[in-house]
Amino acid sequence: MTNLTRAECARFLRENDRFTIITHGGPDGDTTGSAAALCLGLRQIGKTAYVLENPQINEKFLHLVEGLTKPEAEENDVLVAVDVAGTRMIPEEIRHLADKIHMRIDHHGSGTPFAEAELVDSTAAACSEIIYDLLSLLDVELDVPIANALYTAVATDTGCFRYANATGNSFALAAECAYVSPDIFKINQRLFDTVTLGRLRLQSWVVENMQVLQDGKIVVCAIPADIQERLGLADEDMGNLSGFLRSIEGVKMSATVRQDNEGHTGFSVRAVPGYDAAAVCEKLGGGGHKGAAGAGMVDVTMEEAVAALMAALPDLSEN
Amino acid sequence: MTNLTRAECARFLRENDRFTIITHGGPDGDTTGSAAALCLGLRQIGKTAYVLENPQINEKFLHLVEGLTKPEAEENDVLVAVDVAGTRMIPEEIRHLADKIHMRIDHHGSGTPFAEAELVDSTAAACSEIIYDLLSLLDVELDVPIANALYTAVATDTGCFRYANATGNSFALAAECAYVSPDIFKINQRLFDTVTLGRLRLQSWVVENMQVLQDGKIVVCAIPADIQERLGLADEDMGNLSGFLRSIEGVKMSATVRQDNEGHTGFSVRAVPGYDAAAVCEKLGGGGHKGAAGAGMVDVTMEEAVAALMAALPDLSEN
Repeated sequence: MTNLTRAECARFLRENDRFTIITHGGPDGDTTGSAAALCLGLRQIGKTAYVLENPQINEKFLHLVEGLTKPEAEENDVLVAVDVAGTRMIPEEIRHLADKIHMRIDHHGSGTPFAEAELVDSTAAACSEIIYDLLSLLDVELDVPIANALYTAVATDTGCFRYANATGNSFALAAECAYVSPDIFKINQRLFDTVTLGRLRLQSWVVENMQVLQDGKIVVCAIPADIQERLGLADEDMGNLSGFLRSIEGVKMSATVRQDNEGHTGFSVRAVPGYDAAAVCEKLGGGGHKGAAGAGMVDVTMEEAVAALMAALPDLSEN
Repeated sequence: MTNLTRAECARFLRENDRFTIITHGGPDGDTTGSAAALCLGLRQIGKTAYVLENPQINEKFLHLVEGLTKPEAEENDVLVAVDVAGTRMIPEEIRHLADKIHMRIDHHGSGTPFAEAELVDSTAAACSEIIYDLLSLLDVELDVPIANALYTAVATDTGCFRYANATGNSFALAAECAYVSPDIFKINQRLFDTVTLGRLRLQSWVVENMQVLQDGKIVVCAIPADIQERLGLADEDMGNLSGFLRSIEGVKMSATVRQDNEGHTGFSVRAVPGYDAAAVCEKLGGGGHKGAAGAGMVDVTMEEAVAALMAALPDLSEN
């Protein structure tokens, strides 16, 4: 494993061909947008490039890879993983490719190296910031589709530039994309400025049912498996409830415990700057960033799961 | 009245001294941040400059003008109004200065000229984008306090870069500020990423009590004078409910009618791009931007006010 500079990675991309780009499981705007932008950029400079199909891509992001995907990697393809922090983040269906990946381009400092060569820069708020630099080094012209893909990626990974991870580079990338694409505001509207009535109903339920701990510094909500049915909610209404809880004034750390009908329990923890969500989730067998982390368990009751979470939470009374 | 270029306005600032900067009534982040940045920049190049006290400045923005204000304009001061769209936007206490203002720097295309000389650029999402250009022309160094003031201004006027008015220049200004100031994320957290429990209760109330019109394309909510007391809400919980309503999926135009205990009725209308909130408010004797507009009435009942609003709303069934 070699850790590359941007220039070395760009040279690798220039000197190879027949690329297949791999996104991570539970794909978000950054992995999808980064993959789409890299694929479009490589095609612009005459390469054969595809994004490997990832059936989990949300319909919000699916349009970014329209016309770019293929169902399977072929024998001599050059495999490039974008925004994939470790082999456990490779979608299960293609995990057999894990030891055949030639290049990993990522911004997760906590990741585990797995590719032949890697370009990892944990100062980037989004993987797309690295992709943008690579495309610049490859003399790719920032056109509208590439700009929309890169913007979607950096905007989603920074919570539309609100999160602590947003840097001057994040804004500078957004500026370049906004100069090129007149559709930036539509992306914002679709991703950030719309809330469904179902989501509003769910938020009301959560506020009524959450546990407020440690003088309001921590809030925890257990989300039962039948909540979606009970409140008549769509799948898209259900996301990032821990982030919603963390946004309540005075909250330093928030967590949700959510069960599904198949015996899985998911923990999602968020923390404001200065607090560590990953430390909590590591105690539960998971991991992530300081600001956002997750963990999973199987075959535990909600009571057991909540108790495990409570034991993993820090004492913030001194903070 | 002369309409100036940025270079001409910068020359005016360089050739004069003893500046008093005027903010608008109901001061927001843009007028306050623009005034603070201009004042700090003028001081940096050796000028005497103050921001005229504006008792309405919200505590969220008050720190920006700390140490910069003075209570009254003096006889020979050069008066500069920033982000003030017309004389009716000058705070009442100082409206007697309206015909003595030497320079207006603004981004409201719908404004009414009133100053001796004006620099108005309606393509700017925030007045602070123009201030930034002027400070650059004056060779002012972007330091942390100026960066924080300019960032607060552009971030608030673009809804943290989510609104349709955000352009490449808005993001580029934010990038410059983020490179200089390590506190940008704290500004975001304070302004955008925190919601009070009171606000969440109010939003639940609004969702339950709003009227859904024209297949959900328009939503209207009448906010009675006693709601704040009834739900135990702070003043800060009450803002921009029309913006909240506009964010509901499928809504093209939203409006609130809010009464206070002194016989005033305020209309606030928001529209997504392609629809015109100002046209509605003009029919009610008010005005504003296409995306956000307002109007006021005195001594009408809530029923009369709602009826007037209903008559002013467009028929969107064809859209």
